[in-house]
Amino acid sequence: MKITAAKQELVKSLGIVLKAVPSKTTMNILYCILIDATVDTIRFTANDMELGIETIVEGRIEERGLICLDAKLLSEIIRKMPDSDVTIETDPEYRTTITCENSVFHIVGKDGTEFSPLPSIDRVNPVVMNQFQLREMIRQTIFSISANDANKIMTGENLQIHENELRITALDGHRIAIRQMMLDASYEDCEAIIPGKTLSEISKIVSGEIEDEVRIYFTKNQILFEMEGTLVVSRLIDGKYFRIDQMLSNDYETRIRVQKSTLMSAVDRAMLFTSESDKGTLVMTIAQDTMNLSIRSAAGSMSDDVEIQSEGKELRIGFNPKFILDALRVIDEEEITIYFLNSKSPCFIRDDAGSYIYLVLPVNFV
Amino acid sequence: MKITAAKQELVKSLGIVLKAVPSKTTMNILYCILIDATVDTIRFTANDMELGIETIVEGRIEERGLICLDAKLLSEIIRKMPDSDVTIETDPEYRTTITCENSVFHIVGKDGTEFSPLPSIDRVNPVVMNQFQLREMIRQTIFSISANDANKIMTGENLQIHENELRITALDGHRIAIRQMMLDASYEDCEAIIPGKTLSEISKIVSGEIEDEVRIYFTKNQILFEMEGTLVVSRLIDGKYFRIDQMLSNDYETRIRVQKSTLMSAVDRAMLFTSESDKGTLVMTIAQDTMNLSIRSAAGSMSDDVEIQSEGKELRIGFNPKFILDALRVIDEEEITIYFLNSKSPCFIRDDAGSYIYLVLPVNFV
Repeated sequence: MKITAAKQELVKSLGIVLKAVPSKTTMNILYCILIDATVDTIRFTANDMELGIETIVEGRIEERGLICLDAKLLSEIIRKMPDSDVTIETDPEYRTTITCENSVFHIVGKDGTEFSPLPSIDRVNPVVMNQFQLREMIRQTIFSISANDANKIMTGENLQIHENELRITALDGHRIAIRQMMLDASYEDCEAIIPGKTLSEISKIVSGEIEDEVRIYFTKNQILFEMEGTLVVSRLIDGKYFRIDQMLSNDYETRIRVQKSTLMSAVDRAMLFTSESDKGTLVMTIAQDTMNLSIRSAAGSMSDDVEIQSEGKELRIGFNPKFILDALRVIDEEEITIYFLNSKSPCFIRDDAGSYIYLVLPVNFV
Repeated sequence: MKITAAKQELVKSLGIVLKAVPSKTTMNILYCILIDATVDTIRFTANDMELGIETIVEGRIEERGLICLDAKLLSEIIRKMPDSDVTIETDPEYRTTITCENSVFHIVGKDGTEFSPLPSIDRVNPVVMNQFQLREMIRQTIFSISANDANKIMTGENLQIHENELRITALDGHRIAIRQMMLDASYEDCEAIIPGKTLSEISKIVSGEIEDEVRIYFTKNQILFEMEGTLVVSRLIDGKYFRIDQMLSNDYETRIRVQKSTLMSAVDRAMLFTSESDKGTLVMTIAQDTMNLSIRSAAGSMSDDVEIQSEGKELRIGFNPKFILDALRVIDEEEITIYFLNSKSPCFIRDDAGSYIYLVLPVNFV
């Protein structure tokens, strides 16, 4: 195999596929990137068996072939090369020569046919959305998944399509984050639980441009994201997602409107009195025009008054401040509304349009 | 005690003194900052018993007094406060209230009289230089000190003053870094070994402006750096520094001139084949117009040709590439000269003016 491509093009393509190279695995071949130049385009592929990424590299094939090269070493070599054309050439013993201007590297690769190819998925009936929206919806929910593997389903996000409505849900047993949006077309109803890791890598790969499209294909066990020149395939998480609709009550006894940035700063200050060992409870005391926030720990205590517009009953309720802060951080609106029923029921931060709902369970306090 | 100061002023002052708060100590009081408002100015002091920093805080003393407060907690509280005036008030039981707009924090401090004050040093006959030069000279040498405590003297830098000449030397047994500069006045000869930690903190505190002055006072065991509003006192390292002048031979058999950035990129690429377990030897093969750089390891090999102007004998010599790279990184000139005697003798990277000398010992290779 012999291929030539611009350094910057290689850096970009390696940056994309590296996200599917595992940091730890027992299958050494997975530490490699497959360079496939057997047909008319150069393709880089990485695959950690959960998540696989393939991307097309703009370049010249001078001799067809394929090779597996250590992903980390290859990308470091390319990154340190001069900003010029790079040639990668292999011999039948997988000895590989990487040349750029006066620099010549010799490394040893592996048989490209040993690499696990991506599962092939029929690309029919895609759900289409723009990359910016996909990235935003992931960012605005992913913090609510569980880091704990004990309940596998909680480590993923639920993606639901109903007609022209897309809904993404994440929950960890203490809180729920939901984002909804309208698609440009209507689709058959479908639902899938996508691993958190897949979504977090996808959100780094997508361009973040409104003009750039992503096409999403569902199968029973897999999901495929197709972008310009890049395919991302992931396994889905098996099982049935939680029925959350019954938790999303619209009843409330207290409703407050508050400036998000003011509340966020105050909650962020309260975080000073939380630690691994002492989670700390943020107590909200809601009166007519002010909400007092207070927290205490062995290290000290804090009290803060935040101006609000309140409607309904006065209330005293406790929360893990981190869960409130996480939600506030991803809301774009500056004026927000929070709904409370009583001190034992969750609060809801949501907008009238239904584009977001953040539910946080309260905690007991003394 | 009751003092009021602008948040930004407090943030700045805490940022300075925090550098002398130890990350680990058996004396709990050293985790604190002393706030001293017993006289007309507010002073913050931190002291890890090796290095002590005192800085003046612009603010208002409403009630005189002094208190020790946990440095980390205090600085996090201040940092998260709104951008407004902050009041710190204590009661006789060291209970401390920190208020800013609607936010009120309560923490418990310690008796300010228990704090170890900085050693008092007579401020006479300072050596004066600008802060930019001091910072640069530290940056350009400090990487050559030893991280290993086995030889205490190697963990510091030697500062020598002879008439109007200041020389800073760092060495670790494999290399020597020397920077020299002219001062604006002549001083009595003096010499001191300053701990590397002190110098690295000093270089973060100095402003980096040519117009800003730093005054340096020496005593037998201490050194004091005085800047606008801030004092830094450090212990010196006991002992006699190495006599290096006899190592600084001007003899050479081979001299090359080379573009620093080209050489640096090539050496940086060679670093790919060095690791903790396998240091790797960079072999330089010097011919008339080119120098070939090569390195090999279990992972692969590299070869690179760099254009040079050479004078004298051809030569093959091996180095730890890191030591060469470290020196190249801090040289401002783009065209540099390297002197070699033979493959068993150190190379010298130095300029004609004598403002810098970097000596690197060669390593054996097969």
